[in-house]
Amino acid sequence: MADMDALLLFSGGLDSTTLLYWAGNRFDTIVALTFDYAQRHSFEIKMSKKVLSNSGIDKVSQLIFKIDLAQIGGSALTDSSIEVPDNPIENIGNRIPITYVPFRNGIFLSIAAALAEKEGIGTIIGGWNQLDYSGYPDCREDFIKSIERSINLGTKVGRLENGIKIQAPLINLSKKEIIMLGKKNGADYSYSYSCYNGEPVPCGHCDSCKLRAAAFKQAGIKDDYLVRISKAIGR
Amino acid sequence: MADMDALLLFSGGLDSTTLLYWAGNRFDTIVALTFDYAQRHSFEIKMSKKVLSNSGIDKVSQLIFKIDLAQIGGSALTDSSIEVPDNPIENIGNRIPITYVPFRNGIFLSIAAALAEKEGIGTIIGGWNQLDYSGYPDCREDFIKSIERSINLGTKVGRLENGIKIQAPLINLSKKEIIMLGKKNGADYSYSYSCYNGEPVPCGHCDSCKLRAAAFKQAGIKDDYLVRISKAIGR
Repeated sequence: MADMDALLLFSGGLDSTTLLYWAGNRFDTIVALTFDYAQRHSFEIKMSKKVLSNSGIDKVSQLIFKIDLAQIGGSALTDSSIEVPDNPIENIGNRIPITYVPFRNGIFLSIAAALAEKEGIGTIIGGWNQLDYSGYPDCREDFIKSIERSINLGTKVGRLENGIKIQAPLINLSKKEIIMLGKKNGADYSYSYSCYNGEPVPCGHCDSCKLRAAAFKQAGIKDDYLVRISKAIGR
Repeated sequence: MADMDALLLFSGGLDSTTLLYWAGNRFDTIVALTFDYAQRHSFEIKMSKKVLSNSGIDKVSQLIFKIDLAQIGGSALTDSSIEVPDNPIENIGNRIPITYVPFRNGIFLSIAAALAEKEGIGTIIGGWNQLDYSGYPDCREDFIKSIERSINLGTKVGRLENGIKIQAPLINLSKKEIIMLGKKNGADYSYSYSCYNGEPVPCGHCDSCKLRAAAFKQAGIKDDYLVRISKAIGR
């Protein structure tokens, strides 16, 4: 397994855009794995392509994997009959919200592991974060450590070769620190999209918009995405 | 979570058909989860429905989940350009074969966990077997134990409720013992299909056909499927 080749779970949101630039300064090749999972905000897929082309990082290629998680449902992100809530910021992360997609990161990491094994990629990178987060159980460090072990017990490369490592560089950072890390690595968030509602102009009311706005506020800088679209619509 | 409700990974092959009857005698309701994963032998999906209707077990319902694992490839089962090999029976299980689908059981179990969480089902059952088997790393007991732990760390039901148990009743049985267990529970294998090549008349040459034939020989009984089709084609 090539340790200098990375597979990056890449939605094109704030966290994975940060990691794109971070990994661009550390790995020889990067496969950006984007899931087309019947998400309400499938606009993020379109934007993820723009984040990549805008980055100018030429060692990265994108792979879009289709899996229809509406077959599972049970989440505001994959069932259009469930509304995305407007929670007060102080409540976010206190409980597991209705935007939680059952075991989404378990499914995504299993698919990522299969692809890494097939392609001989030694490192999987993801932007999970257990501080300043939405309360999803599959974004916690003990889960990531545990599934790394499961992946190495359940794959040929884990059994017979040097296996697959999972790196979660953002797991214990605050959202402010994530933006600072991105900026240190040259990140441009002009096309990085986070809103759960999937309209080109972010709603500002969903948990994801609120966490992102708080992050830029704490970092003391403007959100590149909002700057870009404000210019575009002339306000 | 309802412990008496089970989600059974169900291909309709020898192992999962055995477990259908076994679970039918033990659980209140059963969801038989069948994957339509672009397998070469998609004929098994058609047959899995017949196994269920033929069983007369009315507490079972089937859920067919579509996920195109040809997007990963790397296996004779999901890449039509790779041939299914004809291995001598004594070599089967000695190494990981080309029919190994990268981390298939990791992906299937992650999806099963998401469905179990959504539906409030407390037990996942699968026919993994580490004796008399094909050498797949994701069919071994240490992997199953590890991913059970990962599932409970990464789901809402594992974090906040009594979690999801994985049962692997066949894990340490010989193929002969699997058939005896099935027969003790009333199993009829007339529609249970195992061949990797996907033709209605099993090829007899793939690892799966050979393991199945050896199993019935050891058990000293005839394979119900072969008896049925022999009658049907009058030979």
